[in-house]
Amino acid sequence: MNKQQVLVKRPMGMPDEETWKLVEAEIPELNDGEVLIQNHYISLDPAMRGWMNDAPSYIPPVAIDDVMRAGSIGKVIKSNNHPKYKVGDVLTGWGGVQQYNVTDGEGYYPVDTNLAPMPMYIGTLGMPGMTAYFGILEVGKIKEGDVVLVSGAAGAVGSIVGQIAKIKGCTVIGIAGGKEKCDYLVNDLGFDGAIDYKNENIKAGIKQHCPKGIDVYFDNVGGDILNAALGKLKMHARIVICGAISQYNNTTPVKGPSNYLNLLVKRATMQGMVVMDYAQDYRTAAQQMGMWMMEGKLKSKEDIYDGIENFHETFGRLFSGDKKGKLILKVIEE
Amino acid sequence: MNKQQVLVKRPMGMPDEETWKLVEAEIPELNDGEVLIQNHYISLDPAMRGWMNDAPSYIPPVAIDDVMRAGSIGKVIKSNNHPKYKVGDVLTGWGGVQQYNVTDGEGYYPVDTNLAPMPMYIGTLGMPGMTAYFGILEVGKIKEGDVVLVSGAAGAVGSIVGQIAKIKGCTVIGIAGGKEKCDYLVNDLGFDGAIDYKNENIKAGIKQHCPKGIDVYFDNVGGDILNAALGKLKMHARIVICGAISQYNNTTPVKGPSNYLNLLVKRATMQGMVVMDYAQDYRTAAQQMGMWMMEGKLKSKEDIYDGIENFHETFGRLFSGDKKGKLILKVIEE
Repeated sequence: MNKQQVLVKRPMGMPDEETWKLVEAEIPELNDGEVLIQNHYISLDPAMRGWMNDAPSYIPPVAIDDVMRAGSIGKVIKSNNHPKYKVGDVLTGWGGVQQYNVTDGEGYYPVDTNLAPMPMYIGTLGMPGMTAYFGILEVGKIKEGDVVLVSGAAGAVGSIVGQIAKIKGCTVIGIAGGKEKCDYLVNDLGFDGAIDYKNENIKAGIKQHCPKGIDVYFDNVGGDILNAALGKLKMHARIVICGAISQYNNTTPVKGPSNYLNLLVKRATMQGMVVMDYAQDYRTAAQQMGMWMMEGKLKSKEDIYDGIENFHETFGRLFSGDKKGKLILKVIEE
Repeated sequence: MNKQQVLVKRPMGMPDEETWKLVEAEIPELNDGEVLIQNHYISLDPAMRGWMNDAPSYIPPVAIDDVMRAGSIGKVIKSNNHPKYKVGDVLTGWGGVQQYNVTDGEGYYPVDTNLAPMPMYIGTLGMPGMTAYFGILEVGKIKEGDVVLVSGAAGAVGSIVGQIAKIKGCTVIGIAGGKEKCDYLVNDLGFDGAIDYKNENIKAGIKQHCPKGIDVYFDNVGGDILNAALGKLKMHARIVICGAISQYNNTTPVKGPSNYLNLLVKRATMQGMVVMDYAQDYRTAAQQMGMWMMEGKLKSKEDIYDGIENFHETFGRLFSGDKKGKLILKVIEE
């Protein structure tokens, strides 16, 4: 049987006990050219909250009574004449929050678990890593000497953004919640400074750490932090809009950045990005990131929880911040 | 004697009777290398409101007891060995709201009044025209077939933005206040459509006129109109932040655009601009615009009021919308 987390009710604000339902479904027969994948790990990402709203966005919302959409990695355990994939292959793709799925392989990529462990392929070498890589390089257009500010800096995307910016010769300041995370950014990841948004005044922190202003702000959180960053831009600054985790569970309208007119004063640019646009270059990016990891320049950290029945509780950690690095749920039962 | 409008009190909200004071000052003696200019016309622009606030911006605020800063055009009536300019030359620059000024010529440009009348050199061939030209071409990056939405469309900048976009083969929709202005946009300037923000629902109007969305939005107004435009972007849309006239007289904080996350959904860009950055290319732009005017493709409209003593009342027309085209004050007495 296939345990699945099914979306049964669209949440207002934070998802609760009634949002998803754990069900068991039969594993369907394979059609010709399909494989059966046993999912080992599920990726938990803030963007999933957006997919639950019945509103137009960059992909359609998850339908009610559908398995919750999620990135995944797993092993092919059955193949019905699939032209590319055979039993034992490890594939990453959109498996959803379930233990098994049947696919023709569309949207899946094979990975080599001799080079990196499975969880890393849905973290630093997966969507969050790709988001960081293309976001800071292609949209942020960082260059040596830039002052880079990143929010959600201890998270799956932010931690990679900051490290890539360091590799490229930037001064990097991270914003994260709590002393432990801030220490981690500076002591373990080599950030030049960190601002603890839970215990410090954000505006004062930015002023202290970026006295001459910000060249690039990579925004994962929106709200007051985005607004504070807008207030301290350098000329021709770039703001990368990657997400707005502070706003996803709002029951009131999203808070628009009142300082947006600084874009004019500083001739600055604010640009949104969605990682899927860069799919054709994922392989190159993954190779580059793998190289940096081997050279010890890029650290990857996964925070792995166990059991598909714990999905709701684990998902909540995305928003409480009670996690370290990339949040992952192990769904295979041993 | 030199009549001047001097800034005596920083306004909260709309400037009032106590904001400026009309004074008469002696005309100073010329130092070596200086000219005396008799100002004929003063340019009245929404940006002037921003220069009155004691807040960091792209240029320093006008100091209390200083002559109000303004663009101007006038004639050299005295020269003390100026290396470039002689009596009779017509110069445009930052003369301020006064009848005479003494300058070494820094920041002034000579113009040829045989080619165009003086007021046009502080309108379509001056700052507003340059703002429109570089804003829509360099920042908006319009291309043939784009759907272009412009707010403040009957104003000095917006009317030129829309006409340039038409020349470049775009579909152009303007937003303006009142039926008369909207008719003017469509019937006289060749816009494809117009939305009357005083009598129509903005969101519904945008939806009706841009059913497939907006490629480029040129924003002069900010507030709810910016937010509505953000809600109807096409993929890879560009938003040019040129001004925010709806917010300049706020006594409450500027309203941030709550729809800014559509930048992410649509991979769109919002970029601020200040015309002074393009100073080295003004001449080329003015030649191109002059050519378009001679070909009948570009219409210039000035709304000229008379008398430096009427400065405060005339300035108010910028914000009430009670004007047609570029707002100008004639300060020479005949």
